[in-house]
Amino acid sequence: MPLPDVLELPLAINLLAVFFGALGGTLRAGEDEHTDLVGVFTLAAAMGFGGGLVRDLLLGNLPPAAFRDPSYLIVAAAAAGLGMLFLYYLRKLGPVLWPIDTIVIGLFACVGTNAALIADLGMLPAIIIGTIASVGGLILSDLLQGRPSSIMYVGPPNAVAGLAGAVTYALLYTGTRPLISIGIAVIATVLVRLTGPLFH
Amino acid sequence: MPLPDVLELPLAINLLAVFFGALGGTLRAGEDEHTDLVGVFTLAAAMGFGGGLVRDLLLGNLPPAAFRDPSYLIVAAAAAGLGMLFLYYLRKLGPVLWPIDTIVIGLFACVGTNAALIADLGMLPAIIIGTIASVGGLILSDLLQGRPSSIMYVGPPNAVAGLAGAVTYALLYTGTRPLISIGIAVIATVLVRLTGPLFH
Amino acid sequence: MPLPDVLELPLAINLLAVFFGALGGTLRAGEDEHTDLVGVFTLAAAMGFGGGLVRDLLLGNLPPAAFRDPSYLIVAAAAAGLGMLFLYYLRKLGPVLWPIDTIVIGLFACVGTNAALIADLGMLPAIIIGTIASVGGLILSDLLQGRPSSIMYVGPPNAVAGLAGAVTYALLYTGTRPLISIGIAVIATVLVRLTGPLFH
Repeated sequence: MPLPDVLELPLAINLLAVFFGALGGTLRAGEDEHTDLVGVFTLAAAMGFGGGLVRDLLLGNLPPAAFRDPSYLIVAAAAAGLGMLFLYYLRKLGPVLWPIDTIVIGLFACVGTNAALIADLGMLPAIIIGTIASVGGLILSDLLQGRPSSIMYVGPPNAVAGLAGAVTYALLYTGTRPLISIGIAVIATVLVRLTGPLFH
Repeated sequence: MPLPDVLELPLAINLLAVFFGALGGTLRAGEDEHTDLVGVFTLAAAMGFGGGLVRDLLLGNLPPAAFRDPSYLIVAAAAAGLGMLFLYYLRKLGPVLWPIDTIVIGLFACVGTNAALIADLGMLPAIIIGTIASVGGLILSDLLQGRPSSIMYVGPPNAVAGLAGAVTYALLYTGTRPLISIGIAVIATVLVRLTGPLFH
Repeated sequence: MPLPDVLELPLAINLLAVFFGALGGTLRAGEDEHTDLVGVFTLAAAMGFGGGLVRDLLLGNLPPAAFRDPSYLIVAAAAAGLGMLFLYYLRKLGPVLWPIDTIVIGLFACVGTNAALIADLGMLPAIIIGTIASVGGLILSDLLQGRPSSIMYVGPPNAVAGLAGAVTYALLYTGTRPLISIGIAVIATVLVRLTGPLFH
C-alpha cells in the first residue's frame, strides 16, 4: 500500500476526516447568527484541522501537515462552501449527522496516535496525543467562540470516545495494515460515544 | 540591502509592526478597567508579537523571532510604557489611530507570508499563514480577555484586510526588493479595510 | 549530580512541580460543579504541565518533556486521583495550600528559565519564557474554562511572583549547582507573592 504522506497513513483517510470535521464546523458557525463569512471558514478550519494542528505542534511536525499539502485547505474550504449551500438541509439531518461527528473523532484519534507512535513516543503518551488530537478541533472551536471547553463538562462523552479510539488503535498498532486497525478503533469510538451517556 | 534576520526582511519593518501592535494592545488594556500592570504588558505583547508567535509556531521557526532577538521585547515594552504615559492623548486620537492598526495588519500579513514562502510552503498555505499572522495578535488578545474571537463576527473586516495583504504580497513575491511589495500589499490591506464595511 | 533529563535539572524537581500543579488543577475542577471526570484530568494536566508545554513549544523542545517521559503523565494522573479522593480534606486545607501553589510557580519559573538559558537564549528572553512558564498552567486553565486570563487582572500577583523567581534564577545561573539557585529563586517567588498585595 502506498504511504503517500508524512503521517504514513493513506492521505484519503486524513482528508475524509478533515472534510467531515470542517462540515461540522460550518454547521456550528451556522448556529451562531453573528458569525460572518470569515467565521464560517475559521470554524470549518478549526474543526477540520484543529486536532491535526495540535498533534503536529506537540510532535514538532512543523509546518503542520495541513500547511505542507494544499489538499487539506482545499478540502476544508470545499466542505465550508458545500456546508453553507446546503445548510438548510444539513440542519434537518442534524440527528442523522452525529455518527459522522463521532467517526471523525475516531479517525482523528487514529491519525494522532499513529503519528505519535511513528515519532517513537511510548504507548501512554501516544494515546494521550491521539485523544487530544481527537477533540482538538472541539477545543479550538470552543476557544475561538469564547466558550468553556465542552469536553470538560457533562455532555456527550467526546473525549472518552476519542480515548477509546486511541487506546484501541495503539493496542492494534503493528506498523502495517493500518486500515483494519482504524476500522476497529472507529467502531470502538462509536460504541463508547453511543453507550457513554448511559453511565451518567 | 542587508537582510539581518531570519525572517529575511529588514528588522526595522518587523519592529515597526511590533511597536504599533503593542501600542494598540496597551490601548486595549486601557479600555478594561480591571486590568493591572501585568495585563497591560501581556496585551501589549499579545498584540505586538501574537501574530509572529503563531507564525513561528506554525512554521517551526523555534524559538520564535520575538525571543531570539531581545529588540522585540524591548520595543514592545517601550510601546507599553509610552502607551500608558500618553493614554489620555492616545485615546483622543482613537479615530486617527485606526489606519495605524490596519497598517500593522498589513505588515504582519507580509512578514508572515514572506516567512512561509521562505520555508518553501506553496502559495496557498503561505497566504493562509500570512493571514493568520496578520490577525494572530487580535486572536490571542481576545483569548486572553476571555472573549469570542472578534475576527469571526460581524465588525471591521480585519481578517479579510489581512488576507488581501497576504495575497498581494504573495503575488508580488520575487525574493528581492521586498519593500516595494510590502508597500503595495499594505495599501491593498488599507483599501479593503476601508471599503470592506460597504459590503455589509 | 546526575542530570537525567533534557531539561538538565533533576527529574524529581520537575515531577514535584507537576504533582502539586496537578493537585491544584484538581481542586480547581472541584470548584466547578459541572466539570466531569474528563474535566478533572484535563485541568490537572493543564495546571500540571501547562507551563512546561508552553515552554517546550516556544523553545522548540518537541515533543514536549511531558510526552517524552511517561512519568509526567503518571504523576499528574496520580495527583488527580488523590485529589479527587481527598477533595473534602484538601478544600479544608485551602488557606494552608496557597504556599504550595506559589512554590509551584517558583519551580516552573526556574525550570523554564533554565531550559531557555540552555537553549542559548539571552537573559531577557529567558526571563520572559520562565515567567510565561510559571503561569502557563493558570493561563491554559483559564482558557479551557472560558475565563479571562486571571494573570492580567487585579488579584494575587502570580505573574509578578513568577517573574521574581525567573529573574532570581537567571541572575544566579551558572550551569552548576542548580538546587541552590532554585531554592533561593523559590524563596524570592514566595516573598513577592506574600508582600505583593500590600502594594495594591
